[in-house]
Amino acid sequence: MITANTPLDRKVVEQMVRQVLRDRLIGQVPTIHHPKVHNGGSNPLVVNVSARHVHVTDADLEVLFGPGAKLTKLKDLYQEGEFASEQQVNVIGPRNRMIPGVRILGPTRNYTQVELAYTDGVFLGIDLPLRISGNHEGTPGCILVGPHGALNMRRGVIRAERHVHMHPDDLAHYGVKDGDYMQLTIDGPCGLTFDRVKVREHPRVKLEIHIDTDEGNACHLPSATRMLLHR
Amino acid sequence: MITANTPLDRKVVEQMVRQVLRDRLIGQVPTIHHPKVHNGGSNPLVVNVSARHVHVTDADLEVLFGPGAKLTKLKDLYQEGEFASEQQVNVIGPRNRMIPGVRILGPTRNYTQVELAYTDGVFLGIDLPLRISGNHEGTPGCILVGPHGALNMRRGVIRAERHVHMHPDDLAHYGVKDGDYMQLTIDGPCGLTFDRVKVREHPRVKLEIHIDTDEGNACHLPSATRMLLHR
Repeated sequence: MITANTPLDRKVVEQMVRQVLRDRLIGQVPTIHHPKVHNGGSNPLVVNVSARHVHVTDADLEVLFGPGAKLTKLKDLYQEGEFASEQQVNVIGPRNRMIPGVRILGPTRNYTQVELAYTDGVFLGIDLPLRISGNHEGTPGCILVGPHGALNMRRGVIRAERHVHMHPDDLAHYGVKDGDYMQLTIDGPCGLTFDRVKVREHPRVKLEIHIDTDEGNACHLPSATRMLLHR
Repeated sequence: MITANTPLDRKVVEQMVRQVLRDRLIGQVPTIHHPKVHNGGSNPLVVNVSARHVHVTDADLEVLFGPGAKLTKLKDLYQEGEFASEQQVNVIGPRNRMIPGVRILGPTRNYTQVELAYTDGVFLGIDLPLRISGNHEGTPGCILVGPHGALNMRRGVIRAERHVHMHPDDLAHYGVKDGDYMQLTIDGPCGLTFDRVKVREHPRVKLEIHIDTDEGNACHLPSATRMLLHR
């Protein structure tokens, strides 16, 4: 902590100003990248925490941001072509509470979806169903508010089921198939083993596990001493 | 959801009003009780999620609530003599963000302490150390605001280490001793196994596991199909 008696070095001041600007400009970062795990396969394993975020259709983007609106890139995500956009919306639930500044991930999709942690669901008053992206049958909705207008989402609010993106090479390395469940062990001061990490195969993905902020915080991923994906 | 076309039954209306009043009056409930697990020992096991909360000294209570202030009981907790008080404070961290309405648990203690989940720490900008209650060496502080005044806490903000309260009979049943670490397996759609559940012996406690909201949400305790405490 800096107290009134501490002489301030120019470098320290510069660092503080940069940090404040970064916090203000970038805000909440949608995914937090963690060190790669070299697992003996052809691809290293990456475990990423997905913070709450939104996917939108082109049509819904226009409702929120105005006619002709396009997503603009803030930063690339780990999967090729996916990015955190500069666009953010406010999410309002049935308790009339709001989570401001929830980032939209690009590119646009053929469905609009809000992915929240259970902590967010309790705050907003939404009983979140556990789903894989795009499976919206029987899911609740919410209200999204953008600078141009509000969107009444009738469905599509979920907690994403923890999952691992795998290329066919990765399936072979781990001896699993699409839809299987694996386990992820995190060693460290808050160590735990996640069951039911769902395998999702795609020919153009990089090996990557997605957990949400509740899960990433429960095991305090930043202090992990070892991460192991296994059956 | 109730739509404008749904005829409203008197009972439904009454239930809704009661729920709203309960939510408004009681607010955030500090611990959420879950079904007991009959483990073959003399005492059933209870797993409780501790929501963020505060402990205070008599002196700090007076700073926050005025001279002569006393904690008044809102509701009993599972351990004999412990209670959620009616008193709540606002917690402010270095990002100048506030978490309002954090409940004080009674009775007063010989230290003031704030127990938060990592999700709260990220929001407030506090890098929470993982501690057992009362161990405050090198821990950060924060500002507490009550109706009478603000308190500059110099230290005592922690994430509580997951733990199990055990009577000497429970130590014998599980074959462990004070300070040991055990594992807690939660089966269900968000199943996982927590490592490092610390054993805390006391001659007057009831067998009870405490995890925080990040942990309770990561495994979605309400949908648990089995809970097992083991070595």
